[in-house]
Amino acid sequence: MKTGWIIEDQGNRKGLWVNESIFNVANGYLGVRGNYEEGYDGKEPTIRGTYINAFYDITPIQYGESAYAFPDTQQKLVNVIDVQDLHIRIGEESFSLFAGQVVSYRRWLNMKEGKYVRLVHWISPQGKELEIEFTRMASFTTLELFVMDVKITRINCDDEVTITSGMNGDISNYTNSNDPRVASDHAKLLHVVHTGVQDTCLQIVAETSRSRLRVAATTFHELTPCIEGRLIQTDTNLTKEYVFPKGKEVLRLTKYNVFTDTRRHEQPELCGLEIVKSVVSKGIKQIWKEQELYLEAFWAMANIEIQGDAPLQEGLRYNVYQLLQSVGKDKYSNIAAKGLSGEGYEGHYFWDTEIYILPFFILCQPELAKQLLRYRYTILGEAKIRAKELGHRKGAAYAWRTITGQECSAYFPAGTAQFHINGDIAYTYIQYYLATGDEAFIAEFGAEVVFETARTWIELGHFDDGVFKIDAVTGPDEYTAIVNNNYYTNVLAKYNMEWAVKWYRQLKSTHPEAWASLCNRIELTDEEIIIFEQAAAQMYLPFNDKLGIHEQDDSFLSKKVWDFENTPRANYPLLLNYHPLFIYRHQVLKQADTVLAHFLIEDGVSSDVLKSSYDYYEKITTHDSSLSSAIYSIMASKIGYADKAYSYFIETARMDLDNTHGNTKDGLHMANMGGTWMAVVYGFTGVRIKEDQLVLNPVLPKAWEGYKFSMQYRQAQITVEVNTNETVLMVDAVKPIVLEVKGKRFKIQTGKIRIAI
Amino acid sequence: MKTGWIIEDQGNRKGLWVNESIFNVANGYLGVRGNYEEGYDGKEPTIRGTYINAFYDITPIQYGESAYAFPDTQQKLVNVIDVQDLHIRIGEESFSLFAGQVVSYRRWLNMKEGKYVRLVHWISPQGKELEIEFTRMASFTTLELFVMDVKITRINCDDEVTITSGMNGDISNYTNSNDPRVASDHAKLLHVVHTGVQDTCLQIVAETSRSRLRVAATTFHELTPCIEGRLIQTDTNLTKEYVFPKGKEVLRLTKYNVFTDTRRHEQPELCGLEIVKSVVSKGIKQIWKEQELYLEAFWAMANIEIQGDAPLQEGLRYNVYQLLQSVGKDKYSNIAAKGLSGEGYEGHYFWDTEIYILPFFILCQPELAKQLLRYRYTILGEAKIRAKELGHRKGAAYAWRTITGQECSAYFPAGTAQFHINGDIAYTYIQYYLATGDEAFIAEFGAEVVFETARTWIELGHFDDGVFKIDAVTGPDEYTAIVNNNYYTNVLAKYNMEWAVKWYRQLKSTHPEAWASLCNRIELTDEEIIIFEQAAAQMYLPFNDKLGIHEQDDSFLSKKVWDFENTPRANYPLLLNYHPLFIYRHQVLKQADTVLAHFLIEDGVSSDVLKSSYDYYEKITTHDSSLSSAIYSIMASKIGYADKAYSYFIETARMDLDNTHGNTKDGLHMANMGGTWMAVVYGFTGVRIKEDQLVLNPVLPKAWEGYKFSMQYRQAQITVEVNTNETVLMVDAVKPIVLEVKGKRFKIQTGKIRIAI
Repeated sequence: MKTGWIIEDQGNRKGLWVNESIFNVANGYLGVRGNYEEGYDGKEPTIRGTYINAFYDITPIQYGESAYAFPDTQQKLVNVIDVQDLHIRIGEESFSLFAGQVVSYRRWLNMKEGKYVRLVHWISPQGKELEIEFTRMASFTTLELFVMDVKITRINCDDEVTITSGMNGDISNYTNSNDPRVASDHAKLLHVVHTGVQDTCLQIVAETSRSRLRVAATTFHELTPCIEGRLIQTDTNLTKEYVFPKGKEVLRLTKYNVFTDTRRHEQPELCGLEIVKSVVSKGIKQIWKEQELYLEAFWAMANIEIQGDAPLQEGLRYNVYQLLQSVGKDKYSNIAAKGLSGEGYEGHYFWDTEIYILPFFILCQPELAKQLLRYRYTILGEAKIRAKELGHRKGAAYAWRTITGQECSAYFPAGTAQFHINGDIAYTYIQYYLATGDEAFIAEFGAEVVFETARTWIELGHFDDGVFKIDAVTGPDEYTAIVNNNYYTNVLAKYNMEWAVKWYRQLKSTHPEAWASLCNRIELTDEEIIIFEQAAAQMYLPFNDKLGIHEQDDSFLSKKVWDFENTPRANYPLLLNYHPLFIYRHQVLKQADTVLAHFLIEDGVSSDVLKSSYDYYEKITTHDSSLSSAIYSIMASKIGYADKAYSYFIETARMDLDNTHGNTKDGLHMANMGGTWMAVVYGFTGVRIKEDQLVLNPVLPKAWEGYKFSMQYRQAQITVEVNTNETVLMVDAVKPIVLEVKGKRFKIQTGKIRIAI
Repeated sequence: MKTGWIIEDQGNRKGLWVNESIFNVANGYLGVRGNYEEGYDGKEPTIRGTYINAFYDITPIQYGESAYAFPDTQQKLVNVIDVQDLHIRIGEESFSLFAGQVVSYRRWLNMKEGKYVRLVHWISPQGKELEIEFTRMASFTTLELFVMDVKITRINCDDEVTITSGMNGDISNYTNSNDPRVASDHAKLLHVVHTGVQDTCLQIVAETSRSRLRVAATTFHELTPCIEGRLIQTDTNLTKEYVFPKGKEVLRLTKYNVFTDTRRHEQPELCGLEIVKSVVSKGIKQIWKEQELYLEAFWAMANIEIQGDAPLQEGLRYNVYQLLQSVGKDKYSNIAAKGLSGEGYEGHYFWDTEIYILPFFILCQPELAKQLLRYRYTILGEAKIRAKELGHRKGAAYAWRTITGQECSAYFPAGTAQFHINGDIAYTYIQYYLATGDEAFIAEFGAEVVFETARTWIELGHFDDGVFKIDAVTGPDEYTAIVNNNYYTNVLAKYNMEWAVKWYRQLKSTHPEAWASLCNRIELTDEEIIIFEQAAAQMYLPFNDKLGIHEQDDSFLSKKVWDFENTPRANYPLLLNYHPLFIYRHQVLKQADTVLAHFLIEDGVSSDVLKSSYDYYEKITTHDSSLSSAIYSIMASKIGYADKAYSYFIETARMDLDNTHGNTKDGLHMANMGGTWMAVVYGFTGVRIKEDQLVLNPVLPKAWEGYKFSMQYRQAQITVEVNTNETVLMVDAVKPIVLEVKGKRFKIQTGKIRIAI
């Protein structure tokens, strides 16, 4: 085994369903949870799930009391056809880890090969001994493909072995009415329209209830030795039973499963058959090889090597790998809050993508970053419609949570009120531009998004006595809602409008035709730009002189501080134990808010303020949101709190592997996973993408001997190596770039920079 | 007909269902909407309803996203068994106002007799001529009784006449998912458990689905001439068919309907039979007589006579009459937002009772006022449980809307967040005490409520830099939500705590035993009282120096003023046309808030501030709530804006009769009806109940020649007569009282006071 590239089943997590999330196998299009092929004992809770990114149904939202422009339906990621079933019988006995004797059991994810393996040495109650090896893979090169492979070795016995391989279309989603973070209702979304056999392939076609999307699962079985199977067909299921005669040879079944859907494939049934044929003719070995090659290229850019801390190395790499597994690779999809690993947050896309996940893609996989940003452009039309519904005359109001752009949040104080998502999206377009210099993309997509979101601030805010104010919004911290002049929101709004002005003037000269066409299309005028400029310049940024910090919002610091001393550990997360009003009444944060603003936009904020702000807000932050620790780690690095930086980093790095938030069963915390990478690159290494240079301020955590990673900046490949003595930067660019390392500026095209630590 | 005592069917309202509300017949226990006995044409919309005050079922509340301590069920007033059906046939033709020729039609409510009459002269399509007179009454002396009477006169014909009289147990509630002010779901609440005949009475017994309350309707038919009928019985219905032979005599059917329920009657079936027997033996004439005597006594106290404005006289009297029809007369019930006239707001009790309705009862029917206040005492236990759910260590948090005390609000920003309801209840106990001097009631009930609500402010608020602040609440104005230091809330909290301190000290000496027992029971200590005193003394009351007004809340005046100029008339009420966030972002009021606070607690506020406040807030108030105009009328009187006082008064006086809010079909606006009375007594007459005197500042509206009304103050009967020259007060007391009239103080026991106008 290659050290640090393997995630092993630790068996010590709470419940098998936690491991189902951790051992999910996905490729951004398709995701399958790490369920046992043969199932459990009927007592262990499970969420048996297969998901296709952005494949959704529509469910009604019920309100006790509704109000104008509350969304009346919601989109929901659908648990699709289950092809995982593989049941093994030896003689009359069924293989189960809950019967007989488990001599040895190992399960692991190999992140270099992109494969999941479960290896069991088992003795049946009647003493028959088997070694069984299950392998699974969701292909990164053929996104529709989920391939399974099982090898069975008979030890000290030669009995007949039966493998029953199933496809099940009678699937429901998971619900829990007591947890606001998962769906409470509407489990049955998918209905089978067809089961059948064509060209030796099994195929189930199913349709969603309201969105009327169709999915086809097409499966081909390859057997060694080659035998014929018996088909069992029902209205919703297809099963093949293969009976291997007595003997000693190794038995093997390879199950090629292809998922196609009407969002991407015009004729999913036909297309499914074609893809199956092509992958079968390629063969399993070749498929595995392609996967390895894909990952080799990926890791060449994305790998962070740490010397001196194996568990963290493992966590960090796992988190980055999950980002790759989750990222949508077409214009229909993005990264859901739980990736494709579970149903938590119903497969919706949030600001998490922009603020926590895109930084990795921008610096390591800019082509995928571009794809993610294009997704926001494709839903701009929906955001403009939503703005109108919300009473705005112009602009775009992006949905707080959505799949195809419509608002799916059923609780506006911590949903629609989080208008900052518009600033987050604009900010990230700008970051992408600063990192890549890709002005063509801005002219084509980015400027329009930034102009429309800038308009939203003008609609939301107003000039009052020489300052521009934005009332009745909720910032990132959901433990305070519907406030005036949230610092985070205002500072992002200011940035958003400043760049709208900048790009308006810049594109006018660099891309005059695109500029003119855009301005004409969205009726953008010089007058509006002047208003953006004024609003940005006069933006109100609440500041408390006594504490020397920016106030989270107008009234935050005058509230009562939460009584942490008398809050038992069991009462966290607070949202599950206190009424929102009780929480809103106090100075208490679910997650970084002003501190996050200081990370995103540091220019113009003195280091004293950064530090005071950190000190103040940290004391009252619960980190009940998984979006918090990474930011506190980064800002601790910035301020020089090395110990805090490291301990927050640890929290992020193994949050899901160690199920520290207790809800990993519902899926992995994708934003936090992006945050782990950020904590190294933006935190320990102090990377900041500025308007005309890349800034680095590397430090080495005490516990480490060194670390190394790569990134791409303005088409330059930069490798950063930090060890106990020095930082070494290797640059390979097509034209000179400017780096500022520990305060020193370098203009460099190719070569090394060495700076003492 | 007696002028001013009759409300006639004007036929010009939008739809018959508006008249169903207006012509409801109720007595505080039982209410029947003014449906036609024979029904409509199947096309006219209708809400056919019969309600028993506080007779409810429980329905689940669905949330798109729920949170901790959101109520998961709601109570809902149940539409009970319908006994209204009377179908008349002459020959083969059925009487219907939608067929044949209506020669004349009149319908009226006689408020002196407490009777509703519908008189129709009708010619059938085949030319048969009938005069039909329907009479209805809900008895004020036998609350269970709803009696109907029909007289049929054959004109120019002698054909056989059939009357079919029905009782229907297959009843559903009205729902409309598009209007937050009525129920959106769960129509079928009632299920028949028995239909049958006993002792010549028909009886249907039905049960609610979840609350498992039972209601029995017991009916007896009295016929002239006496004939036998034919019974038609189904699982849910009982019908009697009476065939009157050919002839010329006047035909008459009297239908005695008695409703009994398990909330008030141990054996409703038995009890229903007994009551029916007793009322039948009494006979219809005697029942009508008793009703008249009851109303004679009522009007002796409650009548306001206006000289010179017949439509307003009618409206004013109608509104007062409806208060009597709606008021619960036992400890289980209160006054629902729509009384017993419709299903709007689901039969819930709100702060409306205390702030808008109790003033009338306190000064005109103190025994009923006491009953209403006792209701709050009976649900104090529920309020204490709710306080705990909301995270408070002690105190009582009254439900924003409820029947038996549990919170039924499914939208906390304009529900649970309106903590001011605790102050409103405390305030009204204090008002009752000041008006009646009934210290025994305070010792027994009032003090406990006031102490427990005082505790709630300590839980909600906190000391900050020498002032006491209350964060994250919503004031009366629902167009601004979850704010800090709402002036209205804070000023009532201050008052609440001041009186808690006062009564604590007062009862200690006047009722030492009751005091000691209470303090012991609720563990109230001197230390707590000192904290109440400090919090009251240091209460933060936001004030804006520039405008010279109290600010509605901390941040209200810094918001953008609503763009009234560009808001089309069709966009009101705003809540049906704008997202809450859009509304919350603006300076715009649904209803009086600070202005209401100034009415309730005027001491310590200068007349300049009162005036500036009125001027400022009036401009930005939409009066989208029916609770607004009355208060603006009263405060206009206070300030001396005679024209405004009068025009707001007109709006309240005929709000339902003229359906000015467009939703009278869902029931009458009870709070507004109380407000009309207040606009005369507190407004034009300037009545204020002070700690040691009653203050009056009468004026005569220009349009009137005079007005006259009575009230009771500290067991004194006071009649106030205002005419163009003078005000005459007639006092008849058991001991001297102090009156301050136009700034002059009088100590008087019996006699007249004359003051020039």
